[in-house]
Amino acid sequence: MDEFDLIKKYLAPISSVESQFLMNDGAVFKPKINLDYVVSTDTIVENVHFNGDEAPELIAKKALRTNLSDLAAMGADPEFYSLSISLPKVKAKNFIKNFVKGLKEDQEEFKIKLLGGDLTAALNLITITINIIGTVPNGKSYSRSKSKINDLIYVTGVLGLSNIGLLNLNNNDKKFSKAKLKYYLPQPRIKFSSKIRDLVSSMIDISDGFLQDCRHLAKSSNLEFVINLNNLPICDIDLLSYEDRLNAALIGGDDYELLFTSPPSHKDKIAKIAKSHSLKVTNIGFVKKGRNGEVISKDKPLNTDAYKHF
Amino acid sequence: MDEFDLIKKYLAPISSVESQFLMNDGAVFKPKINLDYVVSTDTIVENVHFNGDEAPELIAKKALRTNLSDLAAMGADPEFYSLSISLPKVKAKNFIKNFVKGLKEDQEEFKIKLLGGDLTAALNLITITINIIGTVPNGKSYSRSKSKINDLIYVTGVLGLSNIGLLNLNNNDKKFSKAKLKYYLPQPRIKFSSKIRDLVSSMIDISDGFLQDCRHLAKSSNLEFVINLNNLPICDIDLLSYEDRLNAALIGGDDYELLFTSPPSHKDKIAKIAKSHSLKVTNIGFVKKGRNGEVISKDKPLNTDAYKHF
Repeated sequence: MDEFDLIKKYLAPISSVESQFLMNDGAVFKPKINLDYVVSTDTIVENVHFNGDEAPELIAKKALRTNLSDLAAMGADPEFYSLSISLPKVKAKNFIKNFVKGLKEDQEEFKIKLLGGDLTAALNLITITINIIGTVPNGKSYSRSKSKINDLIYVTGVLGLSNIGLLNLNNNDKKFSKAKLKYYLPQPRIKFSSKIRDLVSSMIDISDGFLQDCRHLAKSSNLEFVINLNNLPICDIDLLSYEDRLNAALIGGDDYELLFTSPPSHKDKIAKIAKSHSLKVTNIGFVKKGRNGEVISKDKPLNTDAYKHF
Repeated sequence: MDEFDLIKKYLAPISSVESQFLMNDGAVFKPKINLDYVVSTDTIVENVHFNGDEAPELIAKKALRTNLSDLAAMGADPEFYSLSISLPKVKAKNFIKNFVKGLKEDQEEFKIKLLGGDLTAALNLITITINIIGTVPNGKSYSRSKSKINDLIYVTGVLGLSNIGLLNLNNNDKKFSKAKLKYYLPQPRIKFSSKIRDLVSSMIDISDGFLQDCRHLAKSSNLEFVINLNNLPICDIDLLSYEDRLNAALIGGDDYELLFTSPPSHKDKIAKIAKSHSLKVTNIGFVKKGRNGEVISKDKPLNTDAYKHF
């Protein structure tokens, strides 16, 4: 099968009217009125972001979900995505067949449509890029720079679980099941994010580790972020020490949880919306004027280095 | 320098207001009214689409221009692009620094803005994906499926030149300069395409070789495309035989010229617009009912296989 056969057999059936069923050189959509369009891009590379021996369905979902998490961080509802896959010819048919199964399931779960993309040969390793497009009411997208003094700092979910999953992929103890699942299948907080649009001052998604992303938020807002580590939602796997669990929460990557700030007056509203989404949302600190751009705990800067690509 | 430093130093300065200067998890744009949005994606892979020893400025321009050519094929004006680069850490700083120079020049030439993207580590080879967004008046985008019986078939420029350039990259004879330049720096026909919006029935850009792309157009329109090979605009490099030049035009890739159909009544208008753009536009055949989906010359199907990825 050449690339045209693969596209026709596997990708066209999961494509959209707007993609023109992948028959032309581009997709065409008519923008909705009174909405801003939000665009983000994430790439995953074999042997860097995934091993290559995962089920292609899971790789597909993770690729899509890391992008959905960026939309969540902007407060946007998913609309469309474009997909580029570069992969060795010998792997192509089997990989794409199963990859598309994962895409199809998540397209339905997250109400997002395939616009188009590209399928190219690569020598050895698989590279997947997704470009995602979402919508948000005019002027309502979040930024990282609008935290205010006295705002409370919140995170969704449990931090560090994904990193612990990654470190224990070959450990068959059932106590690691949830962590491994979180690593393979992150849960972008799309719905919760869109429900708190009038309550948020700043937001980021935690993908490179809590500490690093928290510092991005503090720097962008040019304020001091004070964190109470005792309140950080770390996992409760009792095979691991407190230090290991805390460390994973601080610097482990791949959480795809939301970190955001909000005025104290909205605390009850946020708790109520979180409850209605069965989502753990934890107040972990507050914003102040002081050592601007720094993340502080017990009056000292938190300084452990999170994962960096270069 | 880590990825954040590289983004801040090299990519933020060429980014746009809509990209929010790459400070957030996504870009935000307000759509223009009465326009359709056209989206396309193209990926280039080191050792497949480029050698890796080209100047990064040229790789940047070619990556952007192959995408611009897709917009041209849809009749769209460029608006935004997102960029994903995966590359080995050791190459990162030098490559990106020079790559951005090329992007900056072509952003100005083609009036297109950087929306955002992703920068990730790769083990060995560079992979670049561009997702491009353009606009076209409501309902005016081209498709491949609307050719009509008796329409004339046209191509822009000269075919096969890029392939001849590729095959002679190490030949220093000046007679190959133009061909090599065409290979490194294709000329997407953006402006011409947008000026003939009311004259075109179907269009495709020639990227995989004339014959293959012509067959796509014939199949999508479900009509027979009759080509007069004597009229095909092949190059005049006298170091090569007629057969070599014709073969390059038929199956050589990377032309990034436009192939389109238009009613005979528009012939003079097309010639006039082509002239005003100093662009060679050649009528190479016509459309008829018959062996639908086939490309015919001298009453026989043209059947040489063009380049396929898989």
